[in-house]
Amino acid sequence: MKRTKTFAIGVDLGGTSIKTGVVDKKGKILDQITVDSKASKGPPAVIQQIIFTIQHMLGRHKEAECKGIGIGAPGVVSVEEGLVKHPPNFAKWGEVPLAKAIRKITDLPVFLENDANVAAIAEAKFGAGADYKHFLFVIWGSGVGGGIILDKKIYQGPYGGAGEIGHVSIDYNGPLCNCGNRGCIEAYIGQRYLSQRTKDILHSQPHNAKPSKIIEFVEGNLKKIDPYIISMAAEQGDHIAREILEDAGKLLGCALASVLNVLDIRVVVMGGGISAAPQYVYAAMETSLRSRILKPNRAAIRIVRAKLGNSAGMIGAASLVM
Amino acid sequence: MKRTKTFAIGVDLGGTSIKTGVVDKKGKILDQITVDSKASKGPPAVIQQIIFTIQHMLGRHKEAECKGIGIGAPGVVSVEEGLVKHPPNFAKWGEVPLAKAIRKITDLPVFLENDANVAAIAEAKFGAGADYKHFLFVIWGSGVGGGIILDKKIYQGPYGGAGEIGHVSIDYNGPLCNCGNRGCIEAYIGQRYLSQRTKDILHSQPHNAKPSKIIEFVEGNLKKIDPYIISMAAEQGDHIAREILEDAGKLLGCALASVLNVLDIRVVVMGGGISAAPQYVYAAMETSLRSRILKPNRAAIRIVRAKLGNSAGMIGAASLVM
Repeated sequence: MKRTKTFAIGVDLGGTSIKTGVVDKKGKILDQITVDSKASKGPPAVIQQIIFTIQHMLGRHKEAECKGIGIGAPGVVSVEEGLVKHPPNFAKWGEVPLAKAIRKITDLPVFLENDANVAAIAEAKFGAGADYKHFLFVIWGSGVGGGIILDKKIYQGPYGGAGEIGHVSIDYNGPLCNCGNRGCIEAYIGQRYLSQRTKDILHSQPHNAKPSKIIEFVEGNLKKIDPYIISMAAEQGDHIAREILEDAGKLLGCALASVLNVLDIRVVVMGGGISAAPQYVYAAMETSLRSRILKPNRAAIRIVRAKLGNSAGMIGAASLVM
Repeated sequence: MKRTKTFAIGVDLGGTSIKTGVVDKKGKILDQITVDSKASKGPPAVIQQIIFTIQHMLGRHKEAECKGIGIGAPGVVSVEEGLVKHPPNFAKWGEVPLAKAIRKITDLPVFLENDANVAAIAEAKFGAGADYKHFLFVIWGSGVGGGIILDKKIYQGPYGGAGEIGHVSIDYNGPLCNCGNRGCIEAYIGQRYLSQRTKDILHSQPHNAKPSKIIEFVEGNLKKIDPYIISMAAEQGDHIAREILEDAGKLLGCALASVLNVLDIRVVVMGGGISAAPQYVYAAMETSLRSRILKPNRAAIRIVRAKLGNSAGMIGAASLVM
């Protein structure tokens, strides 16, 4: 008897790109397509793009073997109503019934979930979280976000907005965050803020100090500073760069201690672009977390790197179906 | 047909007293006994006291109508194993199989839960939380603790230790907390810390300033300062006292914003001794919380006073049975 290989389609809707993949039951991506998202053009254009990528994938694989379509979307996602609300970086986007729009073109079941939650689900099923029943998934990239996995399932919160760990404040008098609060961990270590802090630190160096390699790498144009540049400089022995990254890890550890105390969780899976940071950043994070979390919880603390990288969105979205 | 009135026994185990009540299905306390707890004498003495209060209540009511015994205990409680681990203020108490010890004297079912969780359950079923599906219960007293109610049920966390909101740090460089972390909200507004801060503030007043009513109330002995004294002074128009209390409310609002962002909860029920604070403390708390929480969550914010006071422990413990 020939066994048919069923699959699901996973869509990772982002502000810069839409990634759509054909994913099998084991979380393996069999095929995929990526398009630049027309986030500035408003919902109809973006929905059209999503439909295009889905139809493209269905055209290349046997639709009869497709079990459904899962979508991970930014912003607040109402899972039951299939709504995507106010995703950041998407123009003219209030509350959009995205699931309904996709159902118009197909009889397949369509599932929707927040993008951070989808990545957390992927890591829980097929990635770095597979060995843990409960963990906090952290996305450290342009912002800081997260997803809470309890008993192998995502904790969505009553209104679908749980896991906003980027907006845990570590200093009530700290720097102003985009969200309006002060001292949010995102306002220290989110990509833009981290780059800005680096600029400030470089500006405050004495004029006769040896110039940082960061300045060399950006050819004096401090606007070009990003976490990758800082990492590169640190790798080549630049002390300022290393200190900035270690400090970021330390600060993230502070925020994690508060969150883990409230949730009674011991394991953190680090995803997002900056999670590829050098091991000493992880060491700083772990030392800080371990010294700050409640004593009975210390021994069991684990911080591990996510395994699925940029594919977590597609894989997690597809696994909403399975 | 005569309807028998069934009841459950609820035990509120505390460091200073053991309160044991006969509670009906509607959360009404029909009878109760309070004894000073021999917390310094070690587990056997305390267990003996608990047994005494239970037997005393069973002697005064029809045992056949008793559905079971619930116990709320401090420290980390392993609900499934019936263990009470390291309760603060209890001497020689490591991990004690409390449920098992009580089962030795009775065939009634025995349930165990953390004391803050038990009070949260009571407020959820019969108190200020009865109208809400999801809320954060905060105990503001000698320390700061809490319980998380989701879908009308307590969220215990994977290891039974969830809801430690007293150890959410609002300043990573802040004052040292008992737990070893810095800037925990408990280290600002817990009874002992709040009294200490008040002393420090009074010491730092210029010598020619009009003396605070607080000093008058404690007859110059600043060691006697406690939140009740501060409240009384504030009530009589003492500006320093009022500022201290408002500031405490404001700081608690900061911690709550972080917690509510992570959990996606909008309602806070305030319990514990200091929760009887004047309305302006609540106003300060709410203003602070509302200005700091993520914008989409602001409109729905509610902070309400707990309704069951000191009886929440007994009622909640009894309702573990029902």
